[in-house]
Amino acid sequence: MTTANIAVVGLAVMGSNLARNLASREGNTVAVYNRTTAKTDDLIAAHPEAGFVKAATMQELADSLQQPRTAIIMVKAGRPTDAVIDELVSVFEPGDIIVDGGNALFTDTIRREAAVRETGIHFVGCGISGGEEGALNGPSLMPGGTAESYETLGPILTGIAAVAEGEPCVTHVGTDGAGHFVKMVHNGIEYADMQLIAEAYDLIRRGTGKSPAEIAEVFEEWNRGELESYLIEITAEVLRQVDAETGQPLVDVILDAAGAKGTGAWTVQTALDLGVPVSGIAEAVFARSLSSKLDQRAAASDLPGPSDEWLVDDADAFVEDVRKALFASKIVAYSQGFDEIVAAAEEHGWDIQKGEVARIWRAGCIIRARFLNDITEAYATTPELPALILAPYFREIMGQTHEAWRRVVIAAAQAGIPSPAFSSSLAYYDGLRADRLPAALVQGQRDFFGAHTYRRVDKQGTFHTQWSGDRTEVEAVDTH
Amino acid sequence: MTTANIAVVGLAVMGSNLARNLASREGNTVAVYNRTTAKTDDLIAAHPEAGFVKAATMQELADSLQQPRTAIIMVKAGRPTDAVIDELVSVFEPGDIIVDGGNALFTDTIRREAAVRETGIHFVGCGISGGEEGALNGPSLMPGGTAESYETLGPILTGIAAVAEGEPCVTHVGTDGAGHFVKMVHNGIEYADMQLIAEAYDLIRRGTGKSPAEIAEVFEEWNRGELESYLIEITAEVLRQVDAETGQPLVDVILDAAGAKGTGAWTVQTALDLGVPVSGIAEAVFARSLSSKLDQRAAASDLPGPSDEWLVDDADAFVEDVRKALFASKIVAYSQGFDEIVAAAEEHGWDIQKGEVARIWRAGCIIRARFLNDITEAYATTPELPALILAPYFREIMGQTHEAWRRVVIAAAQAGIPSPAFSSSLAYYDGLRADRLPAALVQGQRDFFGAHTYRRVDKQGTFHTQWSGDRTEVEAVDTH
Repeated sequence: MTTANIAVVGLAVMGSNLARNLASREGNTVAVYNRTTAKTDDLIAAHPEAGFVKAATMQELADSLQQPRTAIIMVKAGRPTDAVIDELVSVFEPGDIIVDGGNALFTDTIRREAAVRETGIHFVGCGISGGEEGALNGPSLMPGGTAESYETLGPILTGIAAVAEGEPCVTHVGTDGAGHFVKMVHNGIEYADMQLIAEAYDLIRRGTGKSPAEIAEVFEEWNRGELESYLIEITAEVLRQVDAETGQPLVDVILDAAGAKGTGAWTVQTALDLGVPVSGIAEAVFARSLSSKLDQRAAASDLPGPSDEWLVDDADAFVEDVRKALFASKIVAYSQGFDEIVAAAEEHGWDIQKGEVARIWRAGCIIRARFLNDITEAYATTPELPALILAPYFREIMGQTHEAWRRVVIAAAQAGIPSPAFSSSLAYYDGLRADRLPAALVQGQRDFFGAHTYRRVDKQGTFHTQWSGDRTEVEAVDTH
Repeated sequence: MTTANIAVVGLAVMGSNLARNLASREGNTVAVYNRTTAKTDDLIAAHPEAGFVKAATMQELADSLQQPRTAIIMVKAGRPTDAVIDELVSVFEPGDIIVDGGNALFTDTIRREAAVRETGIHFVGCGISGGEEGALNGPSLMPGGTAESYETLGPILTGIAAVAEGEPCVTHVGTDGAGHFVKMVHNGIEYADMQLIAEAYDLIRRGTGKSPAEIAEVFEEWNRGELESYLIEITAEVLRQVDAETGQPLVDVILDAAGAKGTGAWTVQTALDLGVPVSGIAEAVFARSLSSKLDQRAAASDLPGPSDEWLVDDADAFVEDVRKALFASKIVAYSQGFDEIVAAAEEHGWDIQKGEVARIWRAGCIIRARFLNDITEAYATTPELPALILAPYFREIMGQTHEAWRRVVIAAAQAGIPSPAFSSSLAYYDGLRADRLPAALVQGQRDFFGAHTYRRVDKQGTFHTQWSGDRTEVEAVDTH
């Protein structure tokens, strides 16, 4: 009976593919369970090579597993996940391991981990990136949970993970919700990356008159350089695609209303709780929501804008400027994302190795990119970098790119082409390096209308000017 | 015994001032209660003219009030508020009215209203803006709750509210959490407004070399025109203030690290839940959090930037450009804020009159401004405006300002002066009016890596290109 070393619960596409991936690795015997047993039968029939162990009930699943029992849940986030956890807890024993491989909000994972821990069972929230194909052939894996559970789980996950330069893209990210948190930030960065690519495409198209197919060539070329990444690669593929029905480029036939699944918004909402500016990610999320307001946009299409047709003088030079703007903005997005990871690690007591995070994002996941090697290296050299962008390599890139970046933001503003992520990233960059920010005036205003007090540049303490009195300054206890 | 018609619970500065305001109005007798009775005694002793009725216990408070009993809670948001509500519920009777005048998160207000309603008592979340001075002399009041409770509460609030052009700044905003929601958005807009003013000051100072005192004169002049508002007025006051100790402008002595109380972050987090782009407010919140990262900023101060000293050729023309950029960006911030109100009203079933909201913000509150008259009028003429910015008056302003706005964003990018709110607002504006957005490419990417499907411009339905197959298109059921 106890023939399996790992189980998968929930056999929709992601679960099935992950189960097949597991079964294909030496030493694994995979038990599979689905609420509707017909789905289990179908999977087993379609993949006899996998040698799946069928479990018709949760009890059968538990009975089929070696101890410590290990099951990966691949069902919808939210209530379905809670229901499956409850069922597994009822048939598992102390020391066993329940893994949630869905896209759970990390605070849910923290809550679930605490509840399951009371039973002596381990609960691991594990971020899985790479979509259906990644699940089958090698995802990037971000498990949280206890170090003890990773002793059992780690070797299994290592076997199925994507491999980058010989290294499997998995690490024990941290305790309880750390894995799902890092997966969330991965998705937030993905939003920013996609929006930046979209702005680059739009500016090149409007500024040079190149066709989507011609711009596909630009992205292909970029993909041979420092921007090499999965998203650049598939952008070229999408831009080259021709719609069979109309003969038009597919990108011109697709409705320009972008959807979202919520992880980008979570990243920004969490950053706001943590007090971390992730403006590039926020602009990317907002750009999608703005695009989907079709009625509002239709009503706004005749708002005043620049009247002249816009074409740049030197197309090649402009394309190279846009490439640099994209690279610089992308570095900002990653720097903001890693700032959020650092802040959350401090808040939740997670010992997250930032270099390890970059390392496991190098393959399998959507944001996989050559420059993650540079991030890994930056953190390997200086683990306590005050910001990713401050690593010598990235400083140097900023020096090489910021003038081009400014030219692109200027061209967009002049021509009336929306570039929220490019311009926001530049504003963040200039804010970060500013010697003085007008935040001092904001503090003055806040002290004026709300007695919120301020600090001074020249001495310790908290102060208040008696604005409605004689306007002298008093030292204050900051109770606001 | 039953001599009072209104009670105030919680006698810190806001509560004391509100109690004094209430007591100064014809027909009111105000019962006052504080957990520490000494504070109650102090207030009564300091203000014999108020004729306060002392309540040493909650029971005394209840006994002192005419029916329906009405009490306004002015204690800290969160648990202290919940505790006072519980105490009041235990001594009040069905039909009585409990008002929370604190800065509660509107979802807490919805929760509390539902719980209190079960007892037959009315619960009203009431946004109060204007700070300590507003509480004393006339705040802007945003009550939610039942229409029935407003029959009793409305006349009392009307008596103490700020008055704009003869009209009291109070209206029944909507049921349950509507009042606190609208107050939250008010604060979000306030963040944007303050950040825009700060950027305007910074650009003028760096671009023209004017001193803070000279820029105070600029703001004073602006305050005589269409930008006339409380925040512009106090900006001039703050900029003119000289630090007694150093003889320097106070704004140069204040540490440039801005604090925040959370309502701005709430506004953005809620907008993300609602799918409403409030990028201007988000950039303002992030600008504050960036400013407070002093260690990171110190480490980043030598990041590469423009090397030339920057001064504009024509200072007067630049100041006028900045004025127009400020006005245009401010309209965007309000338009985004009203979009959030519209979306929440739909989500929560609130019948919010947008023109009324603008009307009650015209006096008493921090964002009071002349141009709220124009907003009131815009919604009076067309209640179902698809966006505030689309009202004829604001369209015209955009036509008059957008070129100057672009010049300012361009100057900032060129000179390396951070202007996140100016540039984000412009990018939003250009996105809103764009005929096509590169969101189509984002949809193509999402379909490529996640089979998220897309819609087409030329027919109904949801489609998927089989990217990893033969790349033909299939009609899909959108289950993602």
